[in-house]
Amino acid sequence: MSHSSTLLEVAVDQLATLPGIGRRTAMRLALDLLRRDPAEVQRFSDAIRDLRDKVQYCGTCCNISDSSRCSICMDSTRDASLICVVEDIRDVIAIENTRQFKGVYHVLGGIISPMDGIGPDDLNTRQLMDRVEAGGIREVLLALGATLEGDTTAFYLNRKLQPLGVSVTTIARGISVGGDLDQADELTLGRSIADRKPYGG
Amino acid sequence: MSHSSTLLEVAVDQLATLPGIGRRTAMRLALDLLRRDPAEVQRFSDAIRDLRDKVQYCGTCCNISDSSRCSICMDSTRDASLICVVEDIRDVIAIENTRQFKGVYHVLGGIISPMDGIGPDDLNTRQLMDRVEAGGIREVLLALGATLEGDTTAFYLNRKLQPLGVSVTTIARGISVGGDLDQADELTLGRSIADRKPYGG
Repeated sequence: MSHSSTLLEVAVDQLATLPGIGRRTAMRLALDLLRRDPAEVQRFSDAIRDLRDKVQYCGTCCNISDSSRCSICMDSTRDASLICVVEDIRDVIAIENTRQFKGVYHVLGGIISPMDGIGPDDLNTRQLMDRVEAGGIREVLLALGATLEGDTTAFYLNRKLQPLGVSVTTIARGISVGGDLDQADELTLGRSIADRKPYGG
Repeated sequence: MSHSSTLLEVAVDQLATLPGIGRRTAMRLALDLLRRDPAEVQRFSDAIRDLRDKVQYCGTCCNISDSSRCSICMDSTRDASLICVVEDIRDVIAIENTRQFKGVYHVLGGIISPMDGIGPDDLNTRQLMDRVEAGGIREVLLALGATLEGDTTAFYLNRKLQPLGVSVTTIARGISVGGDLDQADELTLGRSIADRKPYGG
């Protein structure tokens, strides 16, 4: 594309670096921003700069935070002896929205993926071991995706955690609540049969 | 959604104001920005702020420009007696990419749409009339989308331009009816410019 404005070209180039945003969409977004009030665009620009510059990570669970310790870790009503291990911040938000979990979290910041060159040392695994080794942890719940990478990460963490005398659990995998049996894929259905449990148990 | 970081919440709120970006996508974009180098995010943020703060509009054709006169209007090899009227900047880019047009442009900055409360006075129509009245214009080519709003705008402009003794043409309806200009492929758009005909002919 040829533009009559370098400023527009630069902005479109930058917007097109976002995941899932092509050049055509980036142009639409840039033109939308152009039509806005300058103060509004300033707020937009500042929010993005501040996000990267001012955000911190909780020293305990590696969750995103506005201070050195996140609000979940500071909440004394939560069970600090139960750690839920997740891939990223979105998983924390998803689990918090269920209101079913009263423990604390540990955010790995990714998942083991040899194909992408991501090993355990690229994630916050050392911090997790330190937390468990420090004592006071009863259970580590591995809440990772039901993918090859999720299974690999769970396998690695379980092998590291078991010797520390902590109970390692994983979230149940099966057909989704409200889902029809014939809609589930074969792997999921097979897994839910293998993992069957007593009725009402 | 509940977040452990207000900074993240604000950034997601801002990204979700973009057209076609929902809160789930906004979260994905925010997390992508978080993973980047701070200097890179600074460039991103600056590009958006500069776009709104520093961009100018060409005093002649109302096209987006880095100075008070755009590079197309300043190009002496182009035919300044042939003005192509378009809805917005994307259309200029689309037509430039066909390499079929050697005249100059006039960017309306929108289209007449009574449903959205947009009338001729909300667009750069006065500037177009001034250009034509100033003389030296041989032909005005209306390159508007083949939509109800495009037809309405073309009808209005033709009625205003005809008394000024200028030839008013429209691009051939080779572009699909109901389609936007910037969605058309370059061959079709180029052909529709070559096949232009007198308005109402």
